[in-house]
Amino acid sequence: MLSNKKKYIVNGNSGIKAQIQFADQKQEFNKRPTKIGRRSLSRSISQSSTDSYSSAASYTDSSDDETSPRDKQQKNSKGNSDFCVKNIKQAEFGRREIEIAEQEMPALMALRKRAQGEKPLAGAKIVGCTHITAQTAVLMETLGALGAQCRWAACNIYSTLNEVAAALAESGFPVFAWKGESEDDFWWCIDRCVNVEGWQPNMILDDGGDLTHWIYKKYPNMFKKIKGIVEESVTGVHRLYQLSKAGKLCVPAMNVNDSVTKQKFDNLYCCRESILDGLKRTTDMMFGGKQVVVCGYGEVGKGCCAALKAMGSIVYVTEIDPICALQACMDGFRLVKLNEVIRQVDIVITCTGNKNVVTREHLDRMKNSCIVCNMGHSNTEIDVASLRTPELTWERVRSQVDHVIWPDGKRIVLLAEGRLLNLSCSTVPTFVLSITATTQALALIELYNAPEGRYKQDVYLLPKKMDEYVASLHLPTFDAHLTELTDEQAKYLGLNKNGPFKPNYYRY
Amino acid sequence: MLSNKKKYIVNGNSGIKAQIQFADQKQEFNKRPTKIGRRSLSRSISQSSTDSYSSAASYTDSSDDETSPRDKQQKNSKGNSDFCVKNIKQAEFGRREIEIAEQEMPALMALRKRAQGEKPLAGAKIVGCTHITAQTAVLMETLGALGAQCRWAACNIYSTLNEVAAALAESGFPVFAWKGESEDDFWWCIDRCVNVEGWQPNMILDDGGDLTHWIYKKYPNMFKKIKGIVEESVTGVHRLYQLSKAGKLCVPAMNVNDSVTKQKFDNLYCCRESILDGLKRTTDMMFGGKQVVVCGYGEVGKGCCAALKAMGSIVYVTEIDPICALQACMDGFRLVKLNEVIRQVDIVITCTGNKNVVTREHLDRMKNSCIVCNMGHSNTEIDVASLRTPELTWERVRSQVDHVIWPDGKRIVLLAEGRLLNLSCSTVPTFVLSITATTQALALIELYNAPEGRYKQDVYLLPKKMDEYVASLHLPTFDAHLTELTDEQAKYLGLNKNGPFKPNYYRY
Amino acid sequence: MLSNKKKYIVNGNSGIKAQIQFADQKQEFNKRPTKIGRRSLSRSISQSSTDSYSSAASYTDSSDDETSPRDKQQKNSKGNSDFCVKNIKQAEFGRREIEIAEQEMPALMALRKRAQGEKPLAGAKIVGCTHITAQTAVLMETLGALGAQCRWAACNIYSTLNEVAAALAESGFPVFAWKGESEDDFWWCIDRCVNVEGWQPNMILDDGGDLTHWIYKKYPNMFKKIKGIVEESVTGVHRLYQLSKAGKLCVPAMNVNDSVTKQKFDNLYCCRESILDGLKRTTDMMFGGKQVVVCGYGEVGKGCCAALKAMGSIVYVTEIDPICALQACMDGFRLVKLNEVIRQVDIVITCTGNKNVVTREHLDRMKNSCIVCNMGHSNTEIDVASLRTPELTWERVRSQVDHVIWPDGKRIVLLAEGRLLNLSCSTVPTFVLSITATTQALALIELYNAPEGRYKQDVYLLPKKMDEYVASLHLPTFDAHLTELTDEQAKYLGLNKNGPFKPNYYRY
Amino acid sequence: MLSNKKKYIVNGNSGIKAQIQFADQKQEFNKRPTKIGRRSLSRSISQSSTDSYSSAASYTDSSDDETSPRDKQQKNSKGNSDFCVKNIKQAEFGRREIEIAEQEMPALMALRKRAQGEKPLAGAKIVGCTHITAQTAVLMETLGALGAQCRWAACNIYSTLNEVAAALAESGFPVFAWKGESEDDFWWCIDRCVNVEGWQPNMILDDGGDLTHWIYKKYPNMFKKIKGIVEESVTGVHRLYQLSKAGKLCVPAMNVNDSVTKQKFDNLYCCRESILDGLKRTTDMMFGGKQVVVCGYGEVGKGCCAALKAMGSIVYVTEIDPICALQACMDGFRLVKLNEVIRQVDIVITCTGNKNVVTREHLDRMKNSCIVCNMGHSNTEIDVASLRTPELTWERVRSQVDHVIWPDGKRIVLLAEGRLLNLSCSTVPTFVLSITATTQALALIELYNAPEGRYKQDVYLLPKKMDEYVASLHLPTFDAHLTELTDEQAKYLGLNKNGPFKPNYYRY
Repeated sequence: MLSNKKKYIVNGNSGIKAQIQFADQKQEFNKRPTKIGRRSLSRSISQSSTDSYSSAASYTDSSDDETSPRDKQQKNSKGNSDFCVKNIKQAEFGRREIEIAEQEMPALMALRKRAQGEKPLAGAKIVGCTHITAQTAVLMETLGALGAQCRWAACNIYSTLNEVAAALAESGFPVFAWKGESEDDFWWCIDRCVNVEGWQPNMILDDGGDLTHWIYKKYPNMFKKIKGIVEESVTGVHRLYQLSKAGKLCVPAMNVNDSVTKQKFDNLYCCRESILDGLKRTTDMMFGGKQVVVCGYGEVGKGCCAALKAMGSIVYVTEIDPICALQACMDGFRLVKLNEVIRQVDIVITCTGNKNVVTREHLDRMKNSCIVCNMGHSNTEIDVASLRTPELTWERVRSQVDHVIWPDGKRIVLLAEGRLLNLSCSTVPTFVLSITATTQALALIELYNAPEGRYKQDVYLLPKKMDEYVASLHLPTFDAHLTELTDEQAKYLGLNKNGPFKPNYYRY
Repeated sequence: MLSNKKKYIVNGNSGIKAQIQFADQKQEFNKRPTKIGRRSLSRSISQSSTDSYSSAASYTDSSDDETSPRDKQQKNSKGNSDFCVKNIKQAEFGRREIEIAEQEMPALMALRKRAQGEKPLAGAKIVGCTHITAQTAVLMETLGALGAQCRWAACNIYSTLNEVAAALAESGFPVFAWKGESEDDFWWCIDRCVNVEGWQPNMILDDGGDLTHWIYKKYPNMFKKIKGIVEESVTGVHRLYQLSKAGKLCVPAMNVNDSVTKQKFDNLYCCRESILDGLKRTTDMMFGGKQVVVCGYGEVGKGCCAALKAMGSIVYVTEIDPICALQACMDGFRLVKLNEVIRQVDIVITCTGNKNVVTREHLDRMKNSCIVCNMGHSNTEIDVASLRTPELTWERVRSQVDHVIWPDGKRIVLLAEGRLLNLSCSTVPTFVLSITATTQALALIELYNAPEGRYKQDVYLLPKKMDEYVASLHLPTFDAHLTELTDEQAKYLGLNKNGPFKPNYYRY
Repeated sequence: MLSNKKKYIVNGNSGIKAQIQFADQKQEFNKRPTKIGRRSLSRSISQSSTDSYSSAASYTDSSDDETSPRDKQQKNSKGNSDFCVKNIKQAEFGRREIEIAEQEMPALMALRKRAQGEKPLAGAKIVGCTHITAQTAVLMETLGALGAQCRWAACNIYSTLNEVAAALAESGFPVFAWKGESEDDFWWCIDRCVNVEGWQPNMILDDGGDLTHWIYKKYPNMFKKIKGIVEESVTGVHRLYQLSKAGKLCVPAMNVNDSVTKQKFDNLYCCRESILDGLKRTTDMMFGGKQVVVCGYGEVGKGCCAALKAMGSIVYVTEIDPICALQACMDGFRLVKLNEVIRQVDIVITCTGNKNVVTREHLDRMKNSCIVCNMGHSNTEIDVASLRTPELTWERVRSQVDHVIWPDGKRIVLLAEGRLLNLSCSTVPTFVLSITATTQALALIELYNAPEGRYKQDVYLLPKKMDEYVASLHLPTFDAHLTELTDEQAKYLGLNKNGPFKPNYYRY
Repeated sequence: MLSNKKKYIVNGNSGIKAQIQFADQKQEFNKRPTKIGRRSLSRSISQSSTDSYSSAASYTDSSDDETSPRDKQQKNSKGNSDFCVKNIKQAEFGRREIEIAEQEMPALMALRKRAQGEKPLAGAKIVGCTHITAQTAVLMETLGALGAQCRWAACNIYSTLNEVAAALAESGFPVFAWKGESEDDFWWCIDRCVNVEGWQPNMILDDGGDLTHWIYKKYPNMFKKIKGIVEESVTGVHRLYQLSKAGKLCVPAMNVNDSVTKQKFDNLYCCRESILDGLKRTTDMMFGGKQVVVCGYGEVGKGCCAALKAMGSIVYVTEIDPICALQACMDGFRLVKLNEVIRQVDIVITCTGNKNVVTREHLDRMKNSCIVCNMGHSNTEIDVASLRTPELTWERVRSQVDHVIWPDGKRIVLLAEGRLLNLSCSTVPTFVLSITATTQALALIELYNAPEGRYKQDVYLLPKKMDEYVASLHLPTFDAHLTELTDEQAKYLGLNKNGPFKPNYYRY
């Protein structure tokens, strides 16, 4: 958890929280005192972060009118009006983005191909609630190609790419989403997906748990026909485990958040690239020779450290866990306490999943021009609130870049106000999203086709063999050729030739 | 100045050579038919590339009116009107950019500090013609602090940051430059710098040779008072060597293009970072596992290869020079001919300084989605012209990104239309510019203060000791502590304790 | 213990499985026809590999006489004769080796220090059967310092360092071991440890399971007083799990083979260094530019690949597992089938844990001078037997290096006859052994002090907290400073401030 | 020949110096007050270092008798007795070593092949004085294949591999050399090469200048027929420049020491590998997490730093030259003064070419177990003499490894007594030697075939084109495919299609 998908930022800001909580939440949604804590109640991607899904995101926005989509009458070119998007006329732009995304999502395209004969999702009626981006669109259209009917809402009020939503609507998908929904819009959209005359979902694909929650609250009877839930976020998974613990989970659920491929890609490999990207786009700084302290040496920290070291930065690491600390040592990083280096470093990066890792005291001691940013969890790692005091001046110098100025003229450079740098200030490579999307598709197929009794009313991890299958679908991208075991070798190793190849505890 | 690198390779092509000689060559300056065309004669910074000087470059542009600056009456807050910029009111924005730049230009700031007693440029009257950016502003204000009077024009019709120009004008610098000058504006601005009642330059700082050319042509008598020329671009240096060869150079000139620090920084270290930055900003691609061919293993190629290898790409190299080829081998890259890998690579990067390295035939054979870009020389390396044929469709998908589509649907992704990727699609770190600017400042000081006879009417390299001094001024940025030789050691090595420390042929 | 790695993969091959079960299996222990044969049943350390424990190993060997230690009357300087070693007079040499080892085993020395007040092993009577090296000696003397009485035999007939055994005997440890024991000697030594008048062990420290087996077979009643078994090898652990499954395990056992630190250190970090060391010592080859194929991308393969890439080799990887394959891709290695590159590579390295990965057919196709070696499992990975055919000539060119010559003159260079390169041709860093030894000591302490009922008659993994403790004891070596959680942070994360810090499934 | 600089250990020990000086040296050999200073007078490879040329070096040594070769009557199998080696019967062992070396010296083998028609050295009578190793043998036999007659002596009294010398004698080469020559033997051998009835050399291949000196002194008339000298060592080159300056050089001489390929390979690439090898073979230490300070960031230092960083060490750098210092910063190393880190580092490595870089004061402050070694110049960098004081105890723990023990028990680990680690404790890869040997062969061909007047009585560098040719001959080893310029490209670049491709000042 400490980990990844940090992405789906959760924050404790009561205003935003309010927006997606209910007056009368059931109790299980109120009791989250522990580990994950408050942050699991709501998710929100800050407005700024939405820029980053695609560099092309905003090219038609300025021409948008201000009428609420709910008040518009729109039809797609086939006369269909079962959708609600910002502007159906933007469909062509969105289609191009989808086509670009398709090129980097080979696994989903392969699934489509394989499904030309059999339709593993024939009969599936999927209701989904995710970020609506070009990559999601490729997933949705793949689900369609596999035989499913889909209805879709956004899981975040800011993250929808209007052009992509339009393209989906134009293609006949009932999509209910736009960028800048109000709290009320948000639930209205979800409801429009679920509450349909003559159509009832039998599968749920959720990201954050809001859709699941809505059905629990408003249409509990629907669960009688639902074969399963596929949930992808830390928050949503946590909610499901809570339900399960409380004995209230009434269908099987698949936790796709903890698959190996997803974890390694989203964290180690993705952060290795996005730390550089995020810092460059915001500060144009040179990495060579810079002194950097990375707080936390989990997968995210490992990725950040490897990249910065490779670019010629001198990297220090802080850790609380002696095992990760020893890894940092063996990988060639000085393990320090933050205090020991805070006066000398040029950059401070948090990747701990913890809170108040960088305190006001640290901030006070940083040298002039020090850059401070967060690659870890939510916006809790840097105590940004402590900087909102009268003697400090804030100066926004660029989008996502603030100078905080001390009375003596010292400035620190705060990126994304302490929110996730990679989500706010860089893009997430499509290829990474492809892995997640493929995992989701396979989880849907698995749950939908599983024989009665294979899955009970509990939360499951994707079988390792499917994890391996997701990986194998991505190998052709790299023109990578897998070796097959001979019968003799398989016997020698005691393995099935088709996998799974490792015990569950294997660490990769 | 941005004109970086070995790029501006001197070459024997008679057409180009002609263009940069200038015995009686009016036709040269008259034939500048298109926007890009004009400037590409000497340093090809395309319009698009100007975006990249600073991420903050454009934030006030949209509010600009369309009146030509030459037709405006503007005064700075002290009532001074000896300047011509887009809009003096933007001065405050520009000042902030300058202040940010100052933080990464420690060497110039150190020079200012040291000059508080003695003013090594007291009495110097410097006329300058360079890109006008925040970094140039720091240089100009440093020259001022060292005692010089300056007048300045832009060396490129597109690259001026209007806000910075405004800030300089507000501070009292006679600056004549704006973004989007016409050909006529260009020479008018230069002339306004030189042709002043009661002021005559005694030093020239040039980037590209246009200012020098103008004085040669229009005010040859001025050279009587001019103590020297400092020139920074390959093109301008080449022009000076031509003049020298022809016996027409009438003052000493300093070639600051070939200093070690400049070359290693501008090429190896800078490209190591900008190749990643340029590719990310344009394509959001993931580097891990991608197959890349880098054409050319000079300093630029070495930087690109090192960075991509570090990010997990599989890199192939092509070379014509067996020594560089052997280095590529020892550094762990497969040395291939382009034909051998062209069908399989995901990215093609040229860094050769050559022409037609990537031909239409290569382009025809690339796989779908292959990215093609140039980090080397001008826009000659990829035969982009060969793609302008009727059967291919061009689709601009983002700024600086074109899809070129074959009849069978294959697309290649062409970046910056084959112009320099790092200049067009990423920013140049201030720190790198700092090294160049410091070298320029020291060259001015050296020429201005050199005793009669030290320099003749010839082109000189900066003395190695000064090169070492530039480097030493940048060490404090890294909190780097140099060791001093003991007397005994200096004697043993036969070196002066203060350097120079290496023979001229040392390769670093 | 040296028996490193995942290597000792548990497998379903019934032949092998049988051999390490031991219900009524006298024939197993009787069939040990050849020197190597005998021991290779459990842990295959070949004779040659024993050279490598320490570069200093052999300096006194040549002066040894040929009398069997069993026939000698030896006393240490205090008149004690309860031991049997090669030559007690070598004690001083051994002591120096032990002292050198102590310097790189800081964790054990720290344990000694902490135990000055409390003696956590007071009353413990430990019988041990491990390799007898300087590192083991540090462990034994640490156990002594912690309050234990120890008696010790060797787990391998070749691996004993006679000088070290002498030093231990001189210090009063009843040690029964020498280099070059016969089969009969082997069991005699074990028996002398166990079968003592007036002393009965209450703890077992085993490496391979032979000691445990002997007690099961000969003195089953001893288990009444035995509090637990600590076992470190894959083979021994497998035997224990078999006993447990069969309901025959009558005391708790601790599997110290699968701790994180041990696995990561023994495999990833250790192999990263020893692949280079082993290749250099045997072939003096240059790594730069060489083409290498590494079969298998588990921890061992990852270490080999990282090191060779860093030294400028071009590395290809083969894999059967798509997840590891995808990791190889993302880390920048071409994933191939062995056949695709076998003709072009300069080095072939196996790290799969599998058998016949390199077949005669592959060997036939390798190019002249190709180097073939194994870093993986036992000696099964390369089909060395297939090279024992009349048309091929074997030429031993150096110790551990054979040229196998084809009729057409082609040679391949086979290292260590396909046995483990790092064990045969390089040394294992003391620091790595320190981690294992510390884990063993802590496991003994844990089992010995555990309250009644904490552990049942089953096989346990060391609690994660102890794993973390082992790591923390090694941090001072690196002058590494761990950060402590604040109360507030611990609460936020739902963690105890002293760990454990990660869930059991965490992958590191 | 073994190449470079640092290696050819010079020492001021008067005993050894005496051994290769003359009573009545001419004055030019006495005046060497400057840069290179005293160290150029003599060279000696310490006995220990000779072990390292080949791991196989010593396998027949123990059986050698003690009779001086000069007193033996030996004939080869063809009845020829014009040689003097230790034992002609060892020829077969030597031949095998030569054959192994041939495999890694592809360029020389290629030269042999190309010379099958024309014999570019037909008529050449070459007298040589170099280390006599398998690699030299490949060079000599190549010269023979190119048409030359050769006579050879050793340039060092310890470095001869007796078996190789025997193999050469068996093949008919008049070789006069053995391991362990006396001073008198040394000059006797040289004289036997030169002073022959009916044979007079017309080319000299020298390594260190002793042969050249001998001819100058004893047979000055020989120079009338000598076409040129090829000299490879720093020392010998320095002597030649002295002669040239003094107007006493009477034939052209070729300095093959400063070619690009030689410098980059011998230093950067070779040291990158040998620093690891040397440390492992002597100390078996683990690199991961170790703190290392590398003194000097020239090519050797760059190689050491890159390798250690890649293995997970934390590396600090000291420098006196600000340009190299800035490179160290950009490459990611903290630049410090030695004093700042001397208390904390685990390893100190000198690569400066300077003297007393590590002083007694530094040694006093090092922590326990710190390893100290030299990769730079001679044995001057570490002030080893300062450790020869009564209060310190020296303990030789392994070959080339001393513990120096302070009164308080602190030990430092001194490798090779401060002489060159790579020469003393690791082997030099044949491939590196191949580059030097090829350069020597080409220099001989060039001088021998140059038309009258091309070379005067001066010291020359090998033409860049030949440097490039040497490189090109080594590319096939890596299956590397060079790209050829098209006519159009060559014209554009103003280059000849066959090179040279770079200006002389190019830095690579």
